[in-house]
Amino acid sequence: MRIGTLTIVGVGLIGGSIGLAARRVGLADCILGTGRNAASLETARRLGRVDEVVLGLGDAVRRADVAVFCTPVDAIAGQVVESACGCKEGTLLTDAGSTKADILRALDGRLPHGVDFVGSHPLAGSEKQGPEHATADLFVGRLAIVTPTRATSDAAVARTVQFWQALGARVRLMSPEEHDRALALTSHLPHLVASALAGLLPPELRDLAATGFRDTTRIAAGDPGLWTAIFAHNRDAVREALARFEDRIAAFRDALDTADRLGLADLLTQAKKVRDALGS
Amino acid sequence: MRIGTLTIVGVGLIGGSIGLAARRVGLADCILGTGRNAASLETARRLGRVDEVVLGLGDAVRRADVAVFCTPVDAIAGQVVESACGCKEGTLLTDAGSTKADILRALDGRLPHGVDFVGSHPLAGSEKQGPEHATADLFVGRLAIVTPTRATSDAAVARTVQFWQALGARVRLMSPEEHDRALALTSHLPHLVASALAGLLPPELRDLAATGFRDTTRIAAGDPGLWTAIFAHNRDAVREALARFEDRIAAFRDALDTADRLGLADLLTQAKKVRDALGS
Repeated sequence: MRIGTLTIVGVGLIGGSIGLAARRVGLADCILGTGRNAASLETARRLGRVDEVVLGLGDAVRRADVAVFCTPVDAIAGQVVESACGCKEGTLLTDAGSTKADILRALDGRLPHGVDFVGSHPLAGSEKQGPEHATADLFVGRLAIVTPTRATSDAAVARTVQFWQALGARVRLMSPEEHDRALALTSHLPHLVASALAGLLPPELRDLAATGFRDTTRIAAGDPGLWTAIFAHNRDAVREALARFEDRIAAFRDALDTADRLGLADLLTQAKKVRDALGS
Repeated sequence: MRIGTLTIVGVGLIGGSIGLAARRVGLADCILGTGRNAASLETARRLGRVDEVVLGLGDAVRRADVAVFCTPVDAIAGQVVESACGCKEGTLLTDAGSTKADILRALDGRLPHGVDFVGSHPLAGSEKQGPEHATADLFVGRLAIVTPTRATSDAAVARTVQFWQALGARVRLMSPEEHDRALALTSHLPHLVASALAGLLPPELRDLAATGFRDTTRIAAGDPGLWTAIFAHNRDAVREALARFEDRIAAFRDALDTADRLGLADLLTQAKKVRDALGS
């Protein structure tokens, strides 16, 4: 795959890492960065995440052969619609948003002829934010999910797959709804649970929070605004995942209340098997 | 501090690391290892965690000036009582168990004159087990909690504090009950929550469990037997901590059910503040 101009909308951790990775493999002739935060964009350019900063979203996307939206999930659809009308025929638009169904529903029938949007979600990231934390190998060996719909052309899906593969990712195709249900369980619920746990720690016990507490709550340091938007976008699937978690907590509660050591050991053993299968 | 013979009962990750750390700083003239698993003891000796293996618990502890019990919490009190009767006057016994009140209650009035037991809990460890994972710096900069009671002499408490400090730890004194309530929240509840979450992951979604899921569930790989004993020993405090967690989960549930974005953002923001204050 070879891209003339690659435009990155939102050059934070993810967008900045896409720029670095694309540069490293020579994926694009020119990498443009755009977004709302002029200071952050200038940092991204200075640190070599993008070749050029373009302040106007429409201008930046109009010049693109491929544009990838790395903005909060509640901003993506609006920005795509706003900027797609000026795009040349054959432009591929994709994103890196953590939810997919809401975004794709919002875009249905609203793109100009010859411009494709294919939803993506690279499963990479960190509780850290900003282009200064970007790395060229953020996607290497990681999974990127690409979510075709009936509206997306096979050719556009194939280019999207090639795009993430060029950055080092493995790709899996899923429907947007299947993606959202899966990520509710593997990403959104863990964030909620980590936040619920972190919120319980009083300042006087901070010193007693060792590795276990730190690991278990690490993602609670993520940006509350981004995560509020993710929960709002994927509300139904998160509520379903939360209900399953509440059932499991109730099983632990029952085992504790009734001093059922065998039941507790069973729950812990089953969890250990799952966790061991994941590796470190 | 200088110890003639240091006996380590249970030479796994914690016991093995005590041996390595004590050797590095030249804390003892001789380090004995004992325990139920002869193969594991031999590994510990071969890897330099202890100088000598003694198969009989009583023999090993009788020779000690200081003995530290690094066995499961439901084994410690029995082993201490069994082996203390042969000890010489002035022997200091301590432990590394994750719960304290039950152990100290079980020992109350059951030690021979001139032999002191002071409860300890170094907040260090890992989901990994066995002497092969031991490291000499496991306790460096970590907190070790020492739990005096009315039965413990000031001199014995002072020696216990010096012991952990010699291995590089910082020491904090707490009552056994205060320790157990605090650890229920900072360690035992996180283990329960991580296990509840890990247990929900079906095999077909394993590939989608990225850094966030892995961090949040890492401690669920811990030994189910050890943790069942910890939960049984500290049942009341864990149930209390779990009730607080259930309340917090209910607050998230309410915010999701009512699409209360501000409420959700508040919960996430409060959690982020706590987590940020902990550092990485």
